Amino acid sequence: MTLLIVGSVAFDTIETPIAKRENILGGSAPFFAYAASFFGPVQMVGVVGEDWPEEYTEMFRQQGIDSSGLEIVPGGKTFRWSGKYHENMNDRETLDTQLNVLGHFQPKLPESFRRAQYVFLANGAPSTGLSVLDQIQGADLVVADTMDLWINIARDDLNTLLKRVDGLVLNDSEAKMLTHELNTITAAKKILNLGPKFVVVKKGEHGALFISEYETYLVPAFPTENVVDPTGAGDSFAGGMMGYIASQGNLNSETIKNALVYGTLVASFGVEGFSLDRYKEIDRAGIDQRLALFRKMTSF
Amino acid sequence: MTLLIVGSVAFDTIETPIAKRENILGGSAPFFAYAASFFGPVQMVGVVGEDWPEEYTEMFRQQGIDSSGLEIVPGGKTFRWSGKYHENMNDRETLDTQLNVLGHFQPKLPESFRRAQYVFLANGAPSTGLSVLDQIQGADLVVADTMDLWINIARDDLNTLLKRVDGLVLNDSEAKMLTHELNTITAAKKILNLGPKFVVVKKGEHGALFISEYETYLVPAFPTENVVDPTGAGDSFAGGMMGYIASQGNLNSETIKNALVYGTLVASFGVEGFSLDRYKEIDRAGIDQRLALFRKMTSF
Repeated sequence: MTLLIVGSVAFDTIETPIAKRENILGGSAPFFAYAASFFGPVQMVGVVGEDWPEEYTEMFRQQGIDSSGLEIVPGGKTFRWSGKYHENMNDRETLDTQLNVLGHFQPKLPESFRRAQYVFLANGAPSTGLSVLDQIQGADLVVADTMDLWINIARDDLNTLLKRVDGLVLNDSEAKMLTHELNTITAAKKILNLGPKFVVVKKGEHGALFISEYETYLVPAFPTENVVDPTGAGDSFAGGMMGYIASQGNLNSETIKNALVYGTLVASFGVEGFSLDRYKEIDRAGIDQRLALFRKMTSF
Repeated sequence: MTLLIVGSVAFDTIETPIAKRENILGGSAPFFAYAASFFGPVQMVGVVGEDWPEEYTEMFRQQGIDSSGLEIVPGGKTFRWSGKYHENMNDRETLDTQLNVLGHFQPKLPESFRRAQYVFLANGAPSTGLSVLDQIQGADLVVADTMDLWINIARDDLNTLLKRVDGLVLNDSEAKMLTHELNTITAAKKILNLGPKFVVVKKGEHGALFISEYETYLVPAFPTENVVDPTGAGDSFAGGMMGYIASQGNLNSETIKNALVYGTLVASFGVEGFSLDRYKEIDRAGIDQRLALFRKMTSF
């Protein structure tokens, strides 16, 4: 089944306690798309500037990612984000943000993208997500990500968007913020009243959980020591999860649980390198090897 | 197999955002012993004052807990702890501590306790744990708990104790403190160099993990919304875990993983009430029912 991702594309400058990298490929769309591409074809929508290297388009093509939805703005510059991670590799501070072409992003879906059956709206202005949904015809499953910023400054649009999506993916702190609840489970359940039929709560190094009216599924995170750069981990998780769901074409309990696990495992590879570096070294077989190991660690 | 617990016995006064209870039974030994008793007989060692109600001894007896190792100090008062939980039910502050008879606790094991095969040294002065080990003959498995206080004020004794135990149970923040590491997995592995053959890291609402030289096992926490009082959750977890291990009489991978799960599940009942209240309403069948539910939530 076709999986469509709409999200940001960025050139990141990242400093960790170990190393610093400048202008490396980042943004929710590349992380999501690459993570999802291990499970099937992906259509990517985003916006970049004239500084977009042709080699990235080619890299995506070879990976089964159709980036013809990537608008290249003549004379424009790609979105840039710069951040620094603290010693614990969890906390980070943003050093600089240059929205550039992302500031005026109005996604225009190519004709061939409008019948995508699986749609993921990565973290972005809820109004952008709504405009994408207006261009989509009869998707089987629409899932959105969101973050504290939109909860704070675009709550009305977010409420409208929540009524039009099947699922919402967000961090535990964001779930609590969105619902004014202090317990993660209670918060997730309360989000179901806002529209989504299911909620996936990302807990970083503590794993993730899926909650719908009648179902609760839990997955711990893969125990990773070698965290090189956590940027994009949440988008990679969502990409692995949605990629697997799209590959199965259903949302039964086994699919959901395996999707949570694949999301976790793909993200666990991603954080072992900067940008998409680690993804270029692995394939589906490598992910399945880690899955076998993970099953040994968790089955009872 | 016989399981011996040495720990504190307390009368707790606890305030949560919902309710307040005064002088209710608490302490590591009662929580651990009751949690373990769902899986087999338990021998309990501790100290209390003359204010110890005979009905508690009878309650333990009926539950298969031999409390003949509970020293009743004539003229003494039982240890008292008073604490207040914040809105999120995770953070708490200690309002008052009266060590009373616990301040001079020198465990003397009854003759019939000295051949216990499974021994758990609950959080307490490492010197107390060492004195217990001097009285034990040929235990199959000795596991200790510890906490930040002893890491800070009794590091030499703790180091000696760590060389004499098979396993260590502690919180993730304590694992990091003990090893000066920021990654939980790295910290746990480093503790193996200090003596224990395995480490169990408790992560509260995020579950637990087991690490030995060749094994890593993970379990998420049971998704609990109805947290009435988290006091004793860590001791209950350890009690369920050790109780199950003692009931199996081995430490193979299936036993360890089931033990982590049982620890998690028993603790998930415990926090649904004050003191041992919820435990009095459940039995092994009730725990196994929750286990079936938990398996549905986590298996893939």
